[in-house]
Amino acid sequence: MSGILYVIGVGAGDPELITLKAMRILREVNIICVPKGREEGGSLALSIAKKAVSLDDKEIIEIHFPMKKTRSQPDPELDARWDEATKTILDRLYGGKNVAFLTLGDPTIYSTFFYLHERLHRLSPELKMIFIPGVSSINASAAAAGISLGLADERVAILPATYMDDIRATLQRFDTVVLMKVHRVVGSVVRVLEEMNLLERAVCVSRIGMDGERIFTDLKSLKAEDIDYFSTIIVRK
Amino acid sequence: MSGILYVIGVGAGDPELITLKAMRILREVNIICVPKGREEGGSLALSIAKKAVSLDDKEIIEIHFPMKKTRSQPDPELDARWDEATKTILDRLYGGKNVAFLTLGDPTIYSTFFYLHERLHRLSPELKMIFIPGVSSINASAAAAGISLGLADERVAILPATYMDDIRATLQRFDTVVLMKVHRVVGSVVRVLEEMNLLERAVCVSRIGMDGERIFTDLKSLKAEDIDYFSTIIVRK
Repeated sequence: MSGILYVIGVGAGDPELITLKAMRILREVNIICVPKGREEGGSLALSIAKKAVSLDDKEIIEIHFPMKKTRSQPDPELDARWDEATKTILDRLYGGKNVAFLTLGDPTIYSTFFYLHERLHRLSPELKMIFIPGVSSINASAAAAGISLGLADERVAILPATYMDDIRATLQRFDTVVLMKVHRVVGSVVRVLEEMNLLERAVCVSRIGMDGERIFTDLKSLKAEDIDYFSTIIVRK
Repeated sequence: MSGILYVIGVGAGDPELITLKAMRILREVNIICVPKGREEGGSLALSIAKKAVSLDDKEIIEIHFPMKKTRSQPDPELDARWDEATKTILDRLYGGKNVAFLTLGDPTIYSTFFYLHERLHRLSPELKMIFIPGVSSINASAAAAGISLGLADERVAILPATYMDDIRATLQRFDTVVLMKVHRVVGSVVRVLEEMNLLERAVCVSRIGMDGERIFTDLKSLKAEDIDYFSTIIVRK
């Protein structure tokens, strides 16, 4: 095998947040692979890449799969999709071609790619993989809100989902808490923040870098229907 | 006042990790401000910017100050330096000029800029400030090590320094723990990881994106003298 798999973070929505390195590799590589799921992360990564570099002469492989958790219980349908995606990528790499796998934001933080990573590594331990980091939605959200995630010796916790059970303990122990995908639990989160007297220390950033980006500083009047899947609450104590 | 203060993350060392947005603003702005301290973060941010854009015709303001914590106790010398820096920036902004303040990595995470932020905001509440996020050293370190910081519902904790007192509790509660600036406590950290049977789940990335970048996967044989201030241990459970 001689092909290299580049796993590229294209940044957090705003096409101008792509890095020079991502640009260069997108120009050099002829095969682009993007996940495409229920949520729009994958196709969004592709649209960002298209704005940065002409992809007209490149092969685009769209891997369709639902972006749900794979850890809770076995899911044969999801497994089959991941297996197919793995095979498609390995075929190209075994043929000596380089492949760029695009992820929204940064590839090391909550990227669906790492589900493929295990499979790729199992089937092909010698596979050459290079990760190109990108601007994550967490940093971009803090920047849009004009706040710091952490200074000096302050501790930061990132809770991606299903955190209601021990949200209080984390809010007590950390200086900054980032609550991702808050759309389904926003009411409960706001109640906890209110009880802990932290409501004024919190900001909600929805659809960062995308159409409809919004920043909410008055969380008391925030409604679940105001925000979607791409919504993050940052609490700064 | 009509000038805008852009606070720009130039990425984690590798000049190719600068974003298109940072490049554009560096081209447009005529005054560049960089912190310059004992550690080399500030001048490194400037050297990255210089590789991306010609700064020959621009005014470069270097703010000298020690990059130590300001929170522990009052420090008149440090205060004086921050006050001077604040005044210098405000002078230019009041004169209608835009200013770019450069930070290594991402401006929202452990950036010295936020010490200025409070002062600027106090003296000039109407100041227009725009944060341009960048690739943080945390994401770049994980990418260099080829590991994920978090997947699905995994929790991530970032401990920047002086974490030895409750490092065990955090390692127990979180799926991923990022320990920053480990150079002074690396021996103690390795002992805790060994006791908790996590040594093989940890990687140390030193000087990410800089000369002498190194990745250590065998932490047992890692010595304090192998690494410097810019060193991070990532533990993935």
